[in-house]
Parts: sequence; structure tokens; C-alpha cells
Amino acid sequence: MHPKEKPDVNKVKFGSVFTDHMFKMNYTVNKGWHDPKIIPYQPVTLDPAAMIFHYGQTVFEGLKAYRTEDDQILLFRPDQNFQRLNRSSERLSIPHVDEEEVLYYLKQLIALEKEWVPKGEGTSLYIRPFIIATENNLSVHPSACYTFMIILSPVAAYYPEGINPVRIYVEENFTRAVKGGTGTAKTAGNYSAAYNAQNEATKQGFSQVLWLDGVEKKYIEEVGSMNVFFKINGEIVTPALNGSILEGITRKSMIELLKSWDMPVVEKRLSMDELLEAYNQGLLEEAFGTGTAAVISPIGELIWRDQKMKINGGETGNVSKRLYDTLTGIQTGKKADSFNWTIQVNSLDETTSN
Amino acid sequence: MHPKEKPDVNKVKFGSVFTDHMFKMNYTVNKGWHDPKIIPYQPVTLDPAAMIFHYGQTVFEGLKAYRTEDDQILLFRPDQNFQRLNRSSERLSIPHVDEEEVLYYLKQLIALEKEWVPKGEGTSLYIRPFIIATENNLSVHPSACYTFMIILSPVAAYYPEGINPVRIYVEENFTRAVKGGTGTAKTAGNYSAAYNAQNEATKQGFSQVLWLDGVEKKYIEEVGSMNVFFKINGEIVTPALNGSILEGITRKSMIELLKSWDMPVVEKRLSMDELLEAYNQGLLEEAFGTGTAAVISPIGELIWRDQKMKINGGETGNVSKRLYDTLTGIQTGKKADSFNWTIQVNSLDETTSN
Ligand SMILES: Cc1ncc(COP(=O)(O)O)c(C=O)c1O
Ligand SMILES: Cc1ncc(COP(=O)(O)O)c(C=O)c1O
Repeated sequence: MHPKEKPDVNKVKFGSVFTDHMFKMNYTVNKGWHDPKIIPYQPVTLDPAAMIFHYGQTVFEGLKAYRTEDDQILLFRPDQNFQRLNRSSERLSIPHVDEEEVLYYLKQLIALEKEWVPKGEGTSLYIRPFIIATENNLSVHPSACYTFMIILSPVAAYYPEGINPVRIYVEENFTRAVKGGTGTAKTAGNYSAAYNAQNEATKQGFSQVLWLDGVEKKYIEEVGSMNVFFKINGEIVTPALNGSILEGITRKSMIELLKSWDMPVVEKRLSMDELLEAYNQGLLEEAFGTGTAAVISPIGELIWRDQKMKINGGETGNVSKRLYDTLTGIQTGKKADSFNWTIQVNSLDETTSN
Repeated sequence: MHPKEKPDVNKVKFGSVFTDHMFKMNYTVNKGWHDPKIIPYQPVTLDPAAMIFHYGQTVFEGLKAYRTEDDQILLFRPDQNFQRLNRSSERLSIPHVDEEEVLYYLKQLIALEKEWVPKGEGTSLYIRPFIIATENNLSVHPSACYTFMIILSPVAAYYPEGINPVRIYVEENFTRAVKGGTGTAKTAGNYSAAYNAQNEATKQGFSQVLWLDGVEKKYIEEVGSMNVFFKINGEIVTPALNGSILEGITRKSMIELLKSWDMPVVEKRLSMDELLEAYNQGLLEEAFGTGTAAVISPIGELIWRDQKMKINGGETGNVSKRLYDTLTGIQTGKKADSFNWTIQVNSLDETTSN
């Protein structure tokens, strides 16, 4: 096999170029997960009646591999991603994978594709594990077979000029998720369900929407596909995990970092009314989204109904900046990893080389 | 091409056998929908990064073709299905199809597969039109390309011994849909989201769950993948379309039939409390689900918390029976179609034969 040419990662669109290989394994009721293998990147052939096309039984993850200055390859908390994958699978009636086993295969795959992990500020190799239902059947029931795949895509810095505050509005018509629904799972249907709202935001010149709870339309949930944090009167506040918010690994890491700095951080139910009141009193000091893609995305302007909140003069705040620098520092091996969050990918294990 | 052998439809599982041909057309931003063709039934080959696998941008429909006693082939209100397909597509940011054009192709496909429309009480050819997002890209945005397909599956009577009352319980933990979400659209994610609840119901010996609204968990929405009707003190009541209920074509047809019979029928918000009160007063006379698959599924027993409601002595009620007989009579050409609901499929139009 001829390896593909490696692109100039700063010139490709996010998630549009893939490496030479992928990981794949299958599940059947009788065999369980079986036949794991690293194979050349290749199309998937499915019957038009494959259940993934009809009933959306699928889960995915998103994480990154980083190249350090001395050419080590680091993964950031991949165990957390595979744990979450299994939690998502539970919600979608998909069988669990063995977390250690898939992490082992991921490391093999990354080792093989080492050359694809880009060099350069903010770049990384984006990792997409996903599971799809593959039974060919139109009756509405959990599939009897599944395929698990991992594909890899070299990506540029999310914000080429460093983190930049964005404009957000509060979505009042569309709902992302509701308790008892699938909001806590990383499953396909949640994302396309957000397109109408995102399209409208883009049209009006906003970067993303801020989602409210689906029940009372009062409480803050997430922003775009990120968790959200506010600094209010010196305290960092983020919405508590309530059964409809996705439990972000960046969110979790930010909370752990803040605690290690002895900064007050609270997870609680936070209403737009409270936020606006804090703003009006001059106490809303920072706001930012967190997620694997951008790490931190500061919110410079937040619009709710006819209220416009300009946060920190539209500039990136100090806590946002410090969190961003620290987390990206740890991810790329520039800062000491006192939490043991990163895992180094060693050279290819000969027993499974391809 | 050798046509497949036609199965004994009463021995195959619903939606597991497909005919010799399928319809397919593609969409790109530049060309719009293009290249419509009827082709041999065949697998679909997609890149692992195809957006359908990651963000669930997809919609589908379900309708049936029936064989009359004198071997005519009838479609039931297919225009309604393609209208709903486009409404679903709007919610998922998928481009509209030309409803008349796809109906034309559907008729061509059915004409070609005429022999596959089974004979016999309650049997039919199930029709599954669906659209999937096919751009290969992991960034979260509406796909730039799509594939529309129609596949066909001969199916037996849903209830081989005629309609039979089922046992249902009221779901209190999981939520099917909420206002502002995707409940009004026929899109994949809604269905796998219901598997956990359905699994639990099956385990406890129930046939389906009755879904409550996602906001207050008080109001009745649907039952399984069916709309739901009640006869209360002589009046037929069904939950009003409220932004989270799927607008069923069977539901719509039932309402039209009842009106034509001068039977009182109301669409309104209906709470479980009201229903239980009616039951306790001896006024809950019938209950049934409606949908393309079963047409009518009477509810013999409904459990809510610690309350058990046995409806009409667990037997199929008169209105349920009359609606079932009338609708299936119209669908199969046994009864006069005064509503002009059915469309006859003529022999193959030579211009597009395959
Ligand atoms: C809906 C949603 N919320 C939040 C996040 C942030 O999670 P993480 O920090 O694990 O990337 C993501 C992205 O993964 C997401 O899809
Ligand atoms: C969620 C849901 N509700 C109701 C229905 C009933 O709709 P119809 O009568 O058009 O089949 C269906 C099936 O199509 C459905 O999927």
C-alpha cells in the first residue's frame, strides 16, 4: 500500500483528511466483539436495510493525539473517552466494548500512523471511535450486530490566531436535549437535531447557540457542542450534570485544574435570570465553552432576548487564558502532567503490526 | 439478473426480505437531486467518515402497497408520506425532494416489483423511502450531499389472528420527544432513543410503552411508534399535535373517518390524571394505537404507576373494530374509497423500464 501524502494541516478543513489505516471490529450476539484488526482506510459496505440508516443506533467519541516538541506522541485521558463511549452505548442499547482492549488497539493504530500526527502549535491528530448498528432489518429493535471503527484525521489549531472570543445567542425555540432523552450520550441524532438552530445562528452572524433546558427553558445547559463555564463574582460556575448535559472530559479536567489552584468552582443549576442579574450588577466576569475541539472558546458577547451582555469587554479573560494555557500545555507535553492525564504512545508492538 | 425467490410472506420476519430492485438518487449542492434510477437491490458503499454515521442526518418514511382481490396494486395516501418526508427533512436541514417526482418513481418501482406484492389477508409490500447524509466530513454541519433510496419488503399481517388487545405501561423515566426537539420528524435518532424503554417493557411482559410529554410528564403523547386514541364517554379523544408528536397518516385518516360517521372526535391535551379519572368513573370505553404497521392496535390493559386499567374487558372495542375494518377495507380495495385515498399502480411505464 502506498501511504497517502500528508497534507499541510493548516490548509485542510477540520475532519476532511484521513490517515492510511483504520481500526475495525465486529459484534454479533453469538461471538460478542470479535475480529479486531487494523486495516487500510477503506469504505464500508452496508445493505440499504442496515439499521444505522433507519433507527440511528450509534455512538461516537472524539479525542486527540498530540506531538510534543521532542516528538513523543501523547493521548489525553483516552480512558475517559472509552468510559463515556460505554455510557453512551448503554443509553442506545449497544453492547459495551472492553475499554482496555480498545485503548490498546487505539495505541497500536496511532503508533502505526505516528507520522500523521502533525507538528505545530495547536495541531493534533483527531481520533474518532464510533459504533454503528449493522443488522439488515426494518423492524424497530436493537440491532443484533455492530461494527466498531476508529478513524484518524490530522487537524489544525481550532483558532489559528489563538483563542478568540465569540458571539453567542441564547436559543429559545429549539431544544438540544431533555431529561430522559439522549442528551448525556454522544450519539449521532443529537447533532443533526441542532443544525436548524446552528444555521439560524450562523445566518445572524453568531458563532453558536447557548442551549437552555428542554423543560422550563430557563436553565443553562451547553453552548454549541461544548460545556459552558462562567466566572461570577470571583467564583467559577458551570451547570451541574442533570441528565441532559453531556459530561465533557474537558469540563471535568477544567474543574480538576481549578480545584488544584484552590479556585472556587461550583456545579449547580444556573438560570438565565441569575446570569443576567449578575451581568447587570457587573459581576459576570468571564464566560467560556469547553470541548476537545477548541479546548476553550471564550464568549465575548451573549445575547438573550433583547439583552446584550458584553463579557470582559469582549476579551479573553484571565481564568480562560490560564486554563487554556495549562491544559494545552499538559496535552502537548510542555507542562508537567501532575494529574497523569496523558498517555504516551510507544512504537508499534510487533505482535499486531500490519 | 435472476429475480430472487419470493418467500412465504407469513414465515418471514417483518422487514427482513427485500425485493429485486431499489430506487436511488443523489443530491449535491451544485446539481440538486440528480441521477434518479431504479437499480438492482444492492449494498451501499460509504466512506467511514460519511456524515450519516456521525451526526445522524437522515429521515425516512413507511407506507404500504396492497394487492386487491382482482390483482390491482394500491398505494395508500403516498402523497401524505412524501409531504411528511419533506417536513421531516426541514427539521433535519435536509433538502426537499420533489414530491410528485418521487411518487412517480415509487410507482415505477412498484410496477416493476408487482409480483412481490403478496396475496393474502393482511399482507402487503412495505415501502421504505429514506435519505442519508453522505458527505465525508467530521465537522458538525449539514451535509453537502445526500442519497435518497426506496427499498421494498413483503410483509405478513401484523397480527396473524386479527387485531388483538395488548398490554401497555406508562413510561415515566425515559422521554421520547420534547417541544423544540425532533419528535415531529421521522428521523432515525428518535427510534433508537426508545430502545431502553422498550427493552424494559418487553422484559416485564408488556407490548409497548405509552409516552408522556417530556416537560411535565403528565400529558399523553404516543404509544410505542403509534399515535393513540381513547373513547371516553362516547367521544373519541386523541392528543393534539403539539410539536413533539409525530403526525401519523393513520391518525389523520381515522379522524377523517370518524368525522364522516358523525362521531364526536376531539384533538386535545389529555393528561393521565384525566384518563384515570374517566376510567374510575367507568367512562374509558376503548383505547388503541394507530400506525401504518398494525393499522390499529387495541390497548387491553394500561398500567400507570400502581394503577391498572383494564379497558373494555381486555377486548377489542366496537369503534376500534369498525375503524380497522373500514381502513383495511379501503386499503385493499374491498370497500369503496370515497375519500380518494388510494392510488392504483399501473403497469410499467415503458420510458423508465429497467
Ligand atoms: C454536546 C457536547 N457537549 C460537550 C462536549 C465537550 O466534551 P469534551 O470536553 O469531552 O470534548 C462535546 C464534545 O465532545 C459535545 O459533543
Ligand atoms: C413515532 C411514530 N408515531 C406514530 C406513527 C404512526 O404514523 P403513520 O400512521 O403515518 O404510520 C409512526 C409510524 O409511522 C411513528 O414512527
